[in-house]
Amino acid sequence: MEKTFSQWKTQCLKKLDLSKKGSVDQDIEHVVSLLNSCEEFFTTSSCSGRIILIDGAADSSGVQKQNCVWLFVSHHKCTFDDLMSGLSRSGGDAVLKFEPAVLHVQCRWLGDAQLLHSVAINSGFRNSGLTVGKTGKIISAVRSTHGLEVPLSHSGRLLVDQEYIRFLTQIANQKMDENLRRIDRFYQNIQSALSAERAHPPDGSGSQEIQDPQHIQEAERREEEEEEEEGKGERSETHTYQRRRRRQQHETDGYHGDSNSSPLELDDCISLFT
Amino acid sequence: MEKTFSQWKTQCLKKLDLSKKGSVDQDIEHVVSLLNSCEEFFTTSSCSGRIILIDGAADSSGVQKQNCVWLFVSHHKCTFDDLMSGLSRSGGDAVLKFEPAVLHVQCRWLGDAQLLHSVAINSGFRNSGLTVGKTGKIISAVRSTHGLEVPLSHSGRLLVDQEYIRFLTQIANQKMDENLRRIDRFYQNIQSALSAERAHPPDGSGSQEIQDPQHIQEAERREEEEEEEEGKGERSETHTYQRRRRRQQHETDGYHGDSNSSPLELDDCISLFT
Repeated sequence: MEKTFSQWKTQCLKKLDLSKKGSVDQDIEHVVSLLNSCEEFFTTSSCSGRIILIDGAADSSGVQKQNCVWLFVSHHKCTFDDLMSGLSRSGGDAVLKFEPAVLHVQCRWLGDAQLLHSVAINSGFRNSGLTVGKTGKIISAVRSTHGLEVPLSHSGRLLVDQEYIRFLTQIANQKMDENLRRIDRFYQNIQSALSAERAHPPDGSGSQEIQDPQHIQEAERREEEEEEEEGKGERSETHTYQRRRRRQQHETDGYHGDSNSSPLELDDCISLFT
Repeated sequence: MEKTFSQWKTQCLKKLDLSKKGSVDQDIEHVVSLLNSCEEFFTTSSCSGRIILIDGAADSSGVQKQNCVWLFVSHHKCTFDDLMSGLSRSGGDAVLKFEPAVLHVQCRWLGDAQLLHSVAINSGFRNSGLTVGKTGKIISAVRSTHGLEVPLSHSGRLLVDQEYIRFLTQIANQKMDENLRRIDRFYQNIQSALSAERAHPPDGSGSQEIQDPQHIQEAERREEEEEEEEGKGERSETHTYQRRRRRQQHETDGYHGDSNSSPLELDDCISLFT
């Protein structure tokens, strides 16, 4: 069934309204609301980040099989007692994980997705990326990398002492704090980017090569070394985003292979300068 | 300076030839060679995965500051002695990490990127995504999620015992094994996808809705639960990839905002069926 972007958005947001029970985590709600209030975006899934303790029977590949038992989960900080309580119920291989915020946003135009992607990267979500589907569906996935994955027990037997669990509790909570800072940074940067766009509407004027190949290659190298440079998220505060459209905008309304709908507009571009 | 895709590729591969000393990790070399032998792709960066022990002074955010000391790094499995030796040199907060393979591939057309992205996702690289730059540069980032991040010492003092280090060595090596399996799965799936394309060249015939919105939403949900379902990578072996182009192909040769170059062709589509 053919759908326009607006129809997709209406359908998706209706589902959100029907299942209000914790469907949007509190700490990312402002981001979700902001994006959904823009005509170019709507969120399809979100998670504000979580600390989880899962129990499973690890197979020989070292990855958790299906049907793991969730001993503990929190979208906020946790306590030492939370973890000890969860671990006391472990009968297999318990693993403590910190997973940062994740957000999926459907975008009307490729240029909108590029803008959001740039904002995400500069806010510290360095594992972000786009998908472009056959029907014209463009999704911007906002993902971070700073996590925690710590095996703690084997066949139900705890392999570390309580002092280590206390230390891990502190580390996990610090990561949650950093995660929340990144979400807020992302929120502010989206606001800046959208304000800049409204202040400087499309004018069809000349282009300016900012994100040249060399710059992108450098970005790729940084991504590989990002564990040592995660503090670079702060530089986003000095960035100004500006988008210019050179040709008439074409909307990716339900783009289908059989029709003669316009392909995505690639004149949309992102200027990124400090 | 304006560049065509072919010029970008030539320049990039020339740099690779000049720095042959370990510039491409052995265990991903076959993937890199295969992609570079195709006219639609070239790799811009790669890593076959690594086990690392890094030492740093963690700030209050719980993330490693710049200028960490690398106590140990291996692109293959490690031994208990490797880790103990590295830890003996720790003066700060040592963290053991397993990082799976990462690959960046520049693609000639958006359809090529979509194909590669689908192959990556179905090979288990569930954090993969695209970036589309202003000059028409399309990068497919191939990334996995199954990692390890284990704090082991604080201010130079080891917080766990040797039995735990032995256990971690085993876990890290299992993850490396799974990582190598995924790389090989990815290699085979690329071969299948390319063979299928050559067997069924573009014919401009009718479309077939495969990757519909519901399917994509399901994929997004799976991504969130992927820690429990990492074994699903195996299902890729039953997939056949077929790409059909409906309109004349337009190459993204140095697409520039000022010119009237054709925008990316969105008729390129991916049929994904079991």
